[in-house]
Amino acid sequence: MFDYKLLSALAAVVEQAGFDRGAQALGLSQSAVSQRIKLLEARLGQPVLLRATPPQPTEVGRRLLNHVQQVRLLERDLQGRVPELDEGRLPERLRIALNSDSLATWWPAAVAPFCTGNAVVLDHVLEDQDVGLKRMRAGEVAACVCAVERPLAGARSQFLGSMRYRALATPAFITRHLCGDPPAEALVRVPAIVFGPDDQLQHRYLASLGLSGAFSHHLCPSSEGFVRLLQSDLGWGMVPELQVREELASGALVDVYRGKPIDVPLYWHHWRNGGDLLAELTQQLTRSAGQWLVV
Amino acid sequence: MFDYKLLSALAAVVEQAGFDRGAQALGLSQSAVSQRIKLLEARLGQPVLLRATPPQPTEVGRRLLNHVQQVRLLERDLQGRVPELDEGRLPERLRIALNSDSLATWWPAAVAPFCTGNAVVLDHVLEDQDVGLKRMRAGEVAACVCAVERPLAGARSQFLGSMRYRALATPAFITRHLCGDPPAEALVRVPAIVFGPDDQLQHRYLASLGLSGAFSHHLCPSSEGFVRLLQSDLGWGMVPELQVREELASGALVDVYRGKPIDVPLYWHHWRNGGDLLAELTQQLTRSAGQWLVV
Repeated sequence: MFDYKLLSALAAVVEQAGFDRGAQALGLSQSAVSQRIKLLEARLGQPVLLRATPPQPTEVGRRLLNHVQQVRLLERDLQGRVPELDEGRLPERLRIALNSDSLATWWPAAVAPFCTGNAVVLDHVLEDQDVGLKRMRAGEVAACVCAVERPLAGARSQFLGSMRYRALATPAFITRHLCGDPPAEALVRVPAIVFGPDDQLQHRYLASLGLSGAFSHHLCPSSEGFVRLLQSDLGWGMVPELQVREELASGALVDVYRGKPIDVPLYWHHWRNGGDLLAELTQQLTRSAGQWLVV
Repeated sequence: MFDYKLLSALAAVVEQAGFDRGAQALGLSQSAVSQRIKLLEARLGQPVLLRATPPQPTEVGRRLLNHVQQVRLLERDLQGRVPELDEGRLPERLRIALNSDSLATWWPAAVAPFCTGNAVVLDHVLEDQDVGLKRMRAGEVAACVCAVERPLAGARSQFLGSMRYRALATPAFITRHLCGDPPAEALVRVPAIVFGPDDQLQHRYLASLGLSGAFSHHLCPSSEGFVRLLQSDLGWGMVPELQVREELASGALVDVYRGKPIDVPLYWHHWRNGGDLLAELTQQLTRSAGQWLVV
């Protein structure tokens, strides 16, 4: 068997994003945690962590983390069946990668019954919907919500539904910059709002109108900030319908150009041998996500 | 003079978080950008970038980036005075680090007149309020909003006002877990919601009640997701009053324990020789922030 004291030290340092906090989470001194990781590296003959801020797992470090994550889920199943094993610990943690717009809209209501029913707390890791899978490949999360269908080896993916994005701005922004009912070309000459370097929705929308090339934009890596920037007349941007139902109903935000929503499909990726807990979450999500997503 | 072709390549790769996107932003091939960075490193006799994903500047790389940022601001001032220099470029970009709760609440309305009046677009970089200054020290941003007062060498800090945080939950959560009007100790036995590993507000709140040690918590690095988790009865957490005015007025969220808000002071840090544009932004912010923050 592996030495799980050493692996737990590695997991704590990566999950808590630092040696001091990792040590605190384990109730150990920082030097004890450092020694465990050095011992692990000595046994493997190679480093498991890059000593950056925060510490980054090496490739072999990631494989070990992935393994720890799966072992934890299996342990939890066993504890449910052999309650004597339970050491009265804090609620189980599940690490899940998802896109910011999901976390800001349908996700909390969808997972609430699961968390409450199973005494589970969640570590949410934000990743753009097109790149979230890399966190799962890196062994940092137990499951992920992302726009890519193809599962990793050893994992499964299931379609949850799509988020519908519409190109929106305030009536004031449209009147000032787009002159009422404009030719689409005007859109590339006014600022857009883009979530981050991985967010290609605005590019896709412009491409769907036959426009390409660079366009001026604010970068705003916050779902709520994104909507607030729109509301402050600073630009146009692709927003999930789910997030701005009230603003659409009241006319505070309107389509910049009629009839071109983009539907982004969301898939639930989870390890095949992830244990009962992950299986239950999967079942709840696939059953309920259609309440919020376009299926 | 430095060779600004080389420095621009470095800045583009770091700001766009990749060689391919950096090259795209400059309208160059990826190999041209790689060559410029190699040439820069050959001249300096040391690396300016760690080839990670995304690429990270080395210490000397950070100093160069900081310099580029300041030169850009000075160039912009000169262009304002000598309009012939203006090459009809896209609007000027300013990179600013701030905490997610500011971006989700007062910031968009506070900067809107400045952005619209000066044709400036913003790159927002999210950092917890206690650690935002490291982005400025790293030369990655022109200015930052953070909770630390002491300015860096060459920079200035000005008090903007405080964000008031209250410990909130739904009435249903309180009834279920905290039994109406509970002893504070019950708070450590129910899940909290914590923004991320750097968020110490929940710890500070518990400490103010005389409680310490570990407590179970969801991690949710999204301001809007944070409030949605609260609303889904998944935990209690420290929320800016500004963000939930309606929920407080309607009684959808209530204080878990009376009378203990935490005021987090916010300071505006900016380079002393940052040019006219940064000076104007500074003036607008210090004049208007009191509309939203507690002063």
